[in-house]
Amino acid sequence: MTTIGILGGGQLGRMLALVGYPLGARFRFLDPAPDAPMRFLAEQVCAHYDDVNALEQFADELDVVTYEFENVPVTSAHYLQERVTIFPPADALRVAQDRYEEKSFFNSLGIPTPRFTRVNSLLELESAIEQIHLPAVLKTRRFGYDGKGQFVIETQSDAERAWQSIGSGSCILEEWIDFTRELSLLAVRNREGARAFYPLVENHHREGILRLSLAPAPNLFSALQAQAEDYAERVLDALNYVGVIAIEWFQVGERLLANELAPRVHNSGHWTMEGAATSQFENHLRAILGLPLGAVTTRGHSAMMNLIGELPDLNALLQIPGAHLHLYDKAPRPGRKLGHVTIVERNEETRNERLEQVAKIINRESTRTGMALRREISRKDGSK
Amino acid sequence: MTTIGILGGGQLGRMLALVGYPLGARFRFLDPAPDAPMRFLAEQVCAHYDDVNALEQFADELDVVTYEFENVPVTSAHYLQERVTIFPPADALRVAQDRYEEKSFFNSLGIPTPRFTRVNSLLELESAIEQIHLPAVLKTRRFGYDGKGQFVIETQSDAERAWQSIGSGSCILEEWIDFTRELSLLAVRNREGARAFYPLVENHHREGILRLSLAPAPNLFSALQAQAEDYAERVLDALNYVGVIAIEWFQVGERLLANELAPRVHNSGHWTMEGAATSQFENHLRAILGLPLGAVTTRGHSAMMNLIGELPDLNALLQIPGAHLHLYDKAPRPGRKLGHVTIVERNEETRNERLEQVAKIINRESTRTGMALRREISRKDGSK
Repeated sequence: MTTIGILGGGQLGRMLALVGYPLGARFRFLDPAPDAPMRFLAEQVCAHYDDVNALEQFADELDVVTYEFENVPVTSAHYLQERVTIFPPADALRVAQDRYEEKSFFNSLGIPTPRFTRVNSLLELESAIEQIHLPAVLKTRRFGYDGKGQFVIETQSDAERAWQSIGSGSCILEEWIDFTRELSLLAVRNREGARAFYPLVENHHREGILRLSLAPAPNLFSALQAQAEDYAERVLDALNYVGVIAIEWFQVGERLLANELAPRVHNSGHWTMEGAATSQFENHLRAILGLPLGAVTTRGHSAMMNLIGELPDLNALLQIPGAHLHLYDKAPRPGRKLGHVTIVERNEETRNERLEQVAKIINRESTRTGMALRREISRKDGSK
Repeated sequence: MTTIGILGGGQLGRMLALVGYPLGARFRFLDPAPDAPMRFLAEQVCAHYDDVNALEQFADELDVVTYEFENVPVTSAHYLQERVTIFPPADALRVAQDRYEEKSFFNSLGIPTPRFTRVNSLLELESAIEQIHLPAVLKTRRFGYDGKGQFVIETQSDAERAWQSIGSGSCILEEWIDFTRELSLLAVRNREGARAFYPLVENHHREGILRLSLAPAPNLFSALQAQAEDYAERVLDALNYVGVIAIEWFQVGERLLANELAPRVHNSGHWTMEGAATSQFENHLRAILGLPLGAVTTRGHSAMMNLIGELPDLNALLQIPGAHLHLYDKAPRPGRKLGHVTIVERNEETRNERLEQVAKIINRESTRTGMALRREISRKDGSK
């Protein structure tokens, strides 16, 4: 029997375990939170990720280690690597943890990104503004997620306020992209080097948090998918990657600019649980276990909406034919992802109708529907 | 947060938990086996089902109790009923635990069964043979499963051997039915009385153990489905049933004869996890939690094959596009259900091709394929 260690016991880890038990795996988690979402359904080592004793205890007799969030200390990954197989490679963590490294990495592979430059002081910010032009986005290099650690600079006079607000010595200033839409690509590579790519997903954020994913992305044309797969392949090869990776893109006209990557299963891939022949969770596990990848064929047109901050009327939600509920067993808190709902239908029209019903229940306090949501795309990256 | 207690921690309980966590439920199991398949993924009270102290501890602060096998002592169900809501109703247990009660119950609702009569001694067996005619099947009234507790009597001279072999004072003698095929219907009714019916499934047994289910049953015609649903509805109503129920049938020409019922999720419904919009497991939980039922729409043509006795080459299995593996974390043992594989495809031809591939790997020791399996239907009921 295979035991898989997972760094991080949030909803992604929880869903990995739920999908992994049927593959015959057992699970052990390392997570400092006593109320981690996985707590009822697997063994937990409750400690910080840099606690060497805990890492030792965690690693004992594991067959393979993986992680469900990218801010695992790289030193911990290296420590574990000496003891047990760890996938995805620690190098992917290093790249994903630093926006400057990440964008430089994309560019080094010939993958276009928005223009960007390092900024380490207010003085440097001012000269960066000369170079990048306004509007531009100031972002911390590290630990940004759900739109945190970002400031949009519209005029020169914003610069000082932005610098104070971000309050970090290590930033990048990034060109503001007037994108058509935000997309993500879920790709997977197994230990034998086999790859698979799910279709591009269209993502909608509000307040920096992913709200809605549509899969496949509406009006997806094959050249766009091919471009994304070509870029993703370069990333997989360069990192000698094993597991699922998510790459987020800005679509500008018919071009893709890479925004960021997540070396793990991703919120924008949750639709795959009902919407694809094999889910991102199962394919991640198959990949790291040295098993063949499962088919990524879609079952129709899917949508995924996050349940954020508080739970809606679940009874009403479950009355919608074909609506699937995924709760994470987390206490409600503003801005917190508590669960998600998926819809999969044979055609886009029915999917959109169902989605409107879901959106009405989720956004009952307002009159926003899923379709309205689509029109108020907020300018954010980082759907982590 | 809702906590569900489950009597029995086998694979059915395990799959209920795996499907139930996303609905926001937590689980506690009562099972006497320290190596119960659910042991890694929920809390377990490890004790016998008639241990009153254990029942007390098990019931503490549960919201609802259900069971995953029908041989839970009815007295234990009654004991729990005083303390906590229990679904399906204990009455369904009582009926399902005794073949005489069960068949009498069907007949009392106008649902035809094979002819049968009670037999409590060798003398009674001899006169029962006069009444029922040969061939006939001698079955113990209680605790029969996977073809155990049955003896086919072909000639008068078999009678004594049959009686000795069964070795029980409480039997029925049942008419031998030259059936066209064996079918099962999965039905579900929730606390508000809403019902849903999955399509009839065609089942194939060998050595008394379910090997293969095809869903929907090939050549299913609407009058047959309507007949099964009409009969099932009578059962649901008579028992004021809540949860999933499986009813097994013999199809004889265009008629259905009821064979037995299982007041729980059922092996012949495992295909629903990939093959239907909502699985039998999720609908069972929705039903007992007072939630609306999920759509039972099929996603295409499904097949389910059990993995029995020992595991096949899993790597080879997972290479088959669209094959889904479900392991139960049980030690190999002859005749033991260790897992199952499902296939779902848009059309029957592709489903059958995939199924042949699966069957070749599962039955590698022989040259039997899934299709060959279909031709060697063995004469058994009881797929529990």
